[in-house]
Amino acid sequence: MLNIAMLPSPLDFSTSYLSTSTIVALCVFFGLLCSCIIVGHLLEENRWANESITALLLGLCSGVVVLLVTKFRSTKILIFSEDLFFLYLLPPIIFNAGFQDKKKQFFRNFITILLFGVLGTVISFCLISLGAFLLFTRIGITNLGIKDHLAIGAILSATDSVCTLQVLSQDETPLLYSIVFGEGVVNDATSIVLFNSVQTLNFSTMNAITALKLLGTFFYLFCTSTALGIIVGLLSAYIIKTLYFGRHSTDREVALMMLMAYLSYMIAELLNLSGILTIFFCGIVMSHYTWHNVTGSSRTTTKHAFATISFIAETFIFLYVGMDAFDVDKWKTSKASIGTSVAVSSTLIALVLIGRAAFVFSIANITNCTKTRESAKIEFRSQFIIWWAGLMRGAVTIALSYNQFSKSEIASTEDSALMITSTIILVLFSTVVFGSITKPLIEAVKLRQSKPAISDSTDNQEDLRLLFLESNCSINQTNHHESQSRRRSSLSLMIRHPTTTVHYFWRKFDDKFMRPVFGGRGFIPAVPGSPPAEEEIS
Amino acid sequence: MLNIAMLPSPLDFSTSYLSTSTIVALCVFFGLLCSCIIVGHLLEENRWANESITALLLGLCSGVVVLLVTKFRSTKILIFSEDLFFLYLLPPIIFNAGFQDKKKQFFRNFITILLFGVLGTVISFCLISLGAFLLFTRIGITNLGIKDHLAIGAILSATDSVCTLQVLSQDETPLLYSIVFGEGVVNDATSIVLFNSVQTLNFSTMNAITALKLLGTFFYLFCTSTALGIIVGLLSAYIIKTLYFGRHSTDREVALMMLMAYLSYMIAELLNLSGILTIFFCGIVMSHYTWHNVTGSSRTTTKHAFATISFIAETFIFLYVGMDAFDVDKWKTSKASIGTSVAVSSTLIALVLIGRAAFVFSIANITNCTKTRESAKIEFRSQFIIWWAGLMRGAVTIALSYNQFSKSEIASTEDSALMITSTIILVLFSTVVFGSITKPLIEAVKLRQSKPAISDSTDNQEDLRLLFLESNCSINQTNHHESQSRRRSSLSLMIRHPTTTVHYFWRKFDDKFMRPVFGGRGFIPAVPGSPPAEEEIS
Repeated sequence: MLNIAMLPSPLDFSTSYLSTSTIVALCVFFGLLCSCIIVGHLLEENRWANESITALLLGLCSGVVVLLVTKFRSTKILIFSEDLFFLYLLPPIIFNAGFQDKKKQFFRNFITILLFGVLGTVISFCLISLGAFLLFTRIGITNLGIKDHLAIGAILSATDSVCTLQVLSQDETPLLYSIVFGEGVVNDATSIVLFNSVQTLNFSTMNAITALKLLGTFFYLFCTSTALGIIVGLLSAYIIKTLYFGRHSTDREVALMMLMAYLSYMIAELLNLSGILTIFFCGIVMSHYTWHNVTGSSRTTTKHAFATISFIAETFIFLYVGMDAFDVDKWKTSKASIGTSVAVSSTLIALVLIGRAAFVFSIANITNCTKTRESAKIEFRSQFIIWWAGLMRGAVTIALSYNQFSKSEIASTEDSALMITSTIILVLFSTVVFGSITKPLIEAVKLRQSKPAISDSTDNQEDLRLLFLESNCSINQTNHHESQSRRRSSLSLMIRHPTTTVHYFWRKFDDKFMRPVFGGRGFIPAVPGSPPAEEEIS
Repeated sequence: MLNIAMLPSPLDFSTSYLSTSTIVALCVFFGLLCSCIIVGHLLEENRWANESITALLLGLCSGVVVLLVTKFRSTKILIFSEDLFFLYLLPPIIFNAGFQDKKKQFFRNFITILLFGVLGTVISFCLISLGAFLLFTRIGITNLGIKDHLAIGAILSATDSVCTLQVLSQDETPLLYSIVFGEGVVNDATSIVLFNSVQTLNFSTMNAITALKLLGTFFYLFCTSTALGIIVGLLSAYIIKTLYFGRHSTDREVALMMLMAYLSYMIAELLNLSGILTIFFCGIVMSHYTWHNVTGSSRTTTKHAFATISFIAETFIFLYVGMDAFDVDKWKTSKASIGTSVAVSSTLIALVLIGRAAFVFSIANITNCTKTRESAKIEFRSQFIIWWAGLMRGAVTIALSYNQFSKSEIASTEDSALMITSTIILVLFSTVVFGSITKPLIEAVKLRQSKPAISDSTDNQEDLRLLFLESNCSINQTNHHESQSRRRSSLSLMIRHPTTTVHYFWRKFDDKFMRPVFGGRGFIPAVPGSPPAEEEIS
């Protein structure tokens, strides 16, 4: 009997504390996780493979093995539990994304990232929902309601850009990297918030007011969740700075950071906010303030421990998706012919391609129009890479799809099962096919792209230096006229590069008010008798 | 409704992914964990308090609050799940114990530790079982069988020496520290193995053969579990040394160490061995070989991450025990008068005191007889500290007690409930009362104890240096007669100090055969293009 739930099942007291099936499942999964790491390491130099593909393929293989061992009865080693996913696997992944994020680039390109991540996702959501609504009835799927179509839009808008990030270099193409990374994270959060908003609303009558309500709920969730994450992050920084835990124990610092990050997620969920957004911003604040308040070994530990946990969670999810693809029961329930399956899956893939193309190219060109300098514009090659980077679908898509379509209350369980199997096909196809040609494709495209991005960043730095000089001069004013002309130039600079100057004023505010209170780089408290700070790592 | 299970409960899809009660429970627990860390830090210098006591008292307070909030209906925020304990909380604690253990001292005092940890626990088990068998019928508890009495022996033999270790200094009293630490770990494993052995046997007829069978099962479990742990540990060392993961990613190394340690535990449970012993020896082997094969940042990360996870798990358990003490249902089920409750609890405490005294003083005096030098003997003060160090009862006791007595199949549920409540009282009393006077008591006792322990260790080192000189001389023999007399002294040394010389020969074997294959200190592979090893930390 392999068909069991992984987490606490009714206990079998006869022989041991733990039921044998739970142990078998855990053994298989941990063994496979180890294999994934080893195989992924061996394939590191391979241009077609990456960690996600390795885990998916290993999962598929073990799915086949289990299918053969159980004689085509079941491939389920463990039942997919959304609790497992949303309580234990997703939070560390998203927290680590915020924690490892390069804040400078993220905030420098903040407006572009928000445009792609929020507005873009909303556009993609609308297009895919509309497309599903119009096309699915033609294929013969008639039992889905408006809520389901909107949910499909949210589900398919969640991208998975892990594989692209392994290929893009942060040093060669900082602008591109920061846009793809930032958009990927904001996009995850946006689509989950959209999905939640769809769930809470009543769609008995679809009209303009409902659409406005959806938008209102979305922005309410977005702002409150962000605020909560920032508050918890600042609180952790303040506690660790004031009490200086490193004096007694490094482990307490690390434990407190882990626990408070997780607590922020749980509080958000308790208040019906978006835990994902909260923990993401908590991660950003923690790496900006808290991380600088702890001892050197705590810094190394948190940096690598969070990355490791996130890495394990991601690998686990892909492994699971791979194993789940051969779930016989689901295929039987859907009752769809191969033709219908293929039609639905291709429709979904086409919608993903079109939905993303629609907003990437339009938003990129609109932002290009607002910029005067040629170097600050996003050229077509970059637009293409941004478009491609968001075609993969991953863990969030699968989890949301299960959440929406594994309920028994929906009228037609056949169509729901079909939606789940189609989502799995979409994830498999996009990860394996799109994923494996990403490395060669980007290498071919980005050749001449690296140059403008670097000059762009140095240009910005020059502007900033100008601004900085000006603010220094205003203190020891030597020439009133010169200063005034410079002030005018500062104003025009702000109009030309709003993000850059917002970033500059934020830095001033941060240095003057925030860091003295919450600590941060260069503001580590010097408590008498404290151990000397160890070498800072990266 | 606060009365819920913490891990996956039936999902409530109406509002969010997660059921509200799960989120409330997680919020409360993570909030309390954070408070424990902060309060524990503030009370660090306090001579009466420690982490366990803080967590217990905080748990008690929140138990009272929940009791008042729910109007005396329930204090259960989460149901105690043995799966939670044995799958997720205990393995990291035990693994960390093996991982952070100072191998040199552990193996130098190996025989003494084994005598205390294995033979001592068996003696304590026999005495407590016998005492329970003889005394409980007099108090009026007649519904317990032989198996229950033997289980009580195993349950009460599991010590919790966390608090003592916080007081003893590894540098001042190395011998004492290593005996208390080593005994604590071996004792945990022994009592769990004993408990398992009791569970598997058929006690319809209690005779000499059953006792022999029990002993046989015990030693079989002990040896096979140890071997498995060593094999998995060596495998991890070999894989990481051969593939040199640090070349690509530090996180992969850390992930592989975590996963393989956990895998060793699961494999042992799958084979019906003792996972605790396996993961303990896996931790020892990993810290001796694997830890030296990884990059500097991986070393820092694993060292602190394992300690942090273990610390969180321990705090969680004490917090839970504190909250659970006010569980109204359990007190109602037991139906015992306050008199009976007090009588049973005092009996248990008395049995623990006597059971431990019986083996500590006898074994210490027997080992003293075999030693000729005055300095190598364990003097009475040390014996007293060793005795006191093992009086606290903690997580393992609670978990085993739940496992034995929360089954519904036992004839009398009243007596079972009484056993659980009495165990909780025992744990609370021993942790809070014995625990809080440990610091002052040990400080008062150990004053003049530190001297002999240091001279003992230096004496041994001198003996070893003699031995080492001798083995060098035998190569370039200058004087045949001198060499022979030295060889004779080596033989007599081995008879006088068997552990020391076993340790010496092990070192030779390790350097010659093990380290070249599995890596270890000074045997880090020099792969071309590998990053330079960072500064080693402690």
